Amino acid sequence: MELLNQHVSIRKFKSQLIDSCVLESIIYSGTKASTTGNMQLYSVIVSDNDEEREKLIPLHFNQGVAKSAPVLLTFIADFNRFSKWCTMSNASPGYGNILSFFTAAIDALIFAQNVCVTAENYGLGICYLGTTTYNAKEIIQVLELPKLTFPVTTVAIGYPDELPELTDRIPLKGIIHKGKYVDYSTQEINKLYAFKESLESSKKFVAENNRESLAQVYTDVRYKKSDNEFFSLKMMEVLKEQGFLE
Amino acid sequence: MELLNQHVSIRKFKSQLIDSCVLESIIYSGTKASTTGNMQLYSVIVSDNDEEREKLIPLHFNQGVAKSAPVLLTFIADFNRFSKWCTMSNASPGYGNILSFFTAAIDALIFAQNVCVTAENYGLGICYLGTTTYNAKEIIQVLELPKLTFPVTTVAIGYPDELPELTDRIPLKGIIHKGKYVDYSTQEINKLYAFKESLESSKKFVAENNRESLAQVYTDVRYKKSDNEFFSLKMMEVLKEQGFLE
Repeated sequence: MELLNQHVSIRKFKSQLIDSCVLESIIYSGTKASTTGNMQLYSVIVSDNDEEREKLIPLHFNQGVAKSAPVLLTFIADFNRFSKWCTMSNASPGYGNILSFFTAAIDALIFAQNVCVTAENYGLGICYLGTTTYNAKEIIQVLELPKLTFPVTTVAIGYPDELPELTDRIPLKGIIHKGKYVDYSTQEINKLYAFKESLESSKKFVAENNRESLAQVYTDVRYKKSDNEFFSLKMMEVLKEQGFLE
Repeated sequence: MELLNQHVSIRKFKSQLIDSCVLESIIYSGTKASTTGNMQLYSVIVSDNDEEREKLIPLHFNQGVAKSAPVLLTFIADFNRFSKWCTMSNASPGYGNILSFFTAAIDALIFAQNVCVTAENYGLGICYLGTTTYNAKEIIQVLELPKLTFPVTTVAIGYPDELPELTDRIPLKGIIHKGKYVDYSTQEINKLYAFKESLESSKKFVAENNRESLAQVYTDVRYKKSDNEFFSLKMMEVLKEQGFLE
């Protein structure tokens, strides 16, 4: 699929707005994705005016891509709507637990990816914002999310104002295991990551951050243990507050 | 996108095998999807012979779709490979926590959905098996998954031997919230689920299961509170065993 194979994340958008019919059409295609037991355990919050966007942007650490995008789509794992329907139907929902949270998260993410593929087919560009889970607590407040919902990811979306080169991937054989997982030898890891480490962009990244290796840029700067642990505690608290750990 | 809009899950497959080049091409397109910080925090296990499939089928509760599919793809949230690379690069990985697990799960699911879209573009049919998280513990044993990995979903894949009708979805306005989440009134819930409840297939479902409402089929038969709670405890134990709650 040429469309999928040419995907690249867009971080700089034109000011051009997205027609509401186009946006609806994209979200419609999202809802055609697989969903657990046809329960559709997701919602999406469309933030497309300055007031709405400005409340969210700091929660995504003021990243340029969040500021630049005319629309932010926050994807919600949502057992609230379904549970309300159950209660109204004289049925007793039992979805305040981690398995149900994860089931809804799967639904929301599959939905999100179909939205992204369709958006690109319309000539739009997208970028996932992983910061959503970091600041789920504050996003819940801003978007007024009720219990049994949780924001799993955000997609910045708009018409591209840049044409980045395709990003590298490790060789396919590094991803695929036949029949069972065969753990990686030192030699294999070296081979899989050699190309990535050889890239000029990687070397620049290492130099700019005063590190010895590309991996150190990840562990010491971008995805630090102390941050991961801090935001993990926060995430567990939020899952509890949202009623998913009962 | 006609391809996405015509998606329907396939549960009965021809015995025809999938050419290994086709399978590789599908997985390749999967790897072109967005991935957190270009870390590619996923792997996929290809189970395509009888011995491999027969170990997995009972763990998916012997569902017909699992038995019928010539190939089962188990999608793994994988921080093992990346962490090994870090350690080898004199960097200290800190990914044994719930935030990192969820980050890898996001990566694996976006990857999985691109694989599914591409598979359908090749004329293959797919069905997600939500049973993966229920029996993650046993799947980990069978597939010999190391620490810092977790099976998030499985896709049954093959050439369709049925042509099911498209499944219903609730109206789009039930999914989309503008600017913030506006919780559903009783009247709105009634409207959103009225069509689903009116379907002959739904009525048959209710009758077959001796229930009063469609929602009761979900809460009392398909996705029961007691099961969800049992499998939630199990899932948390497995996340701990896999090193994601340190």
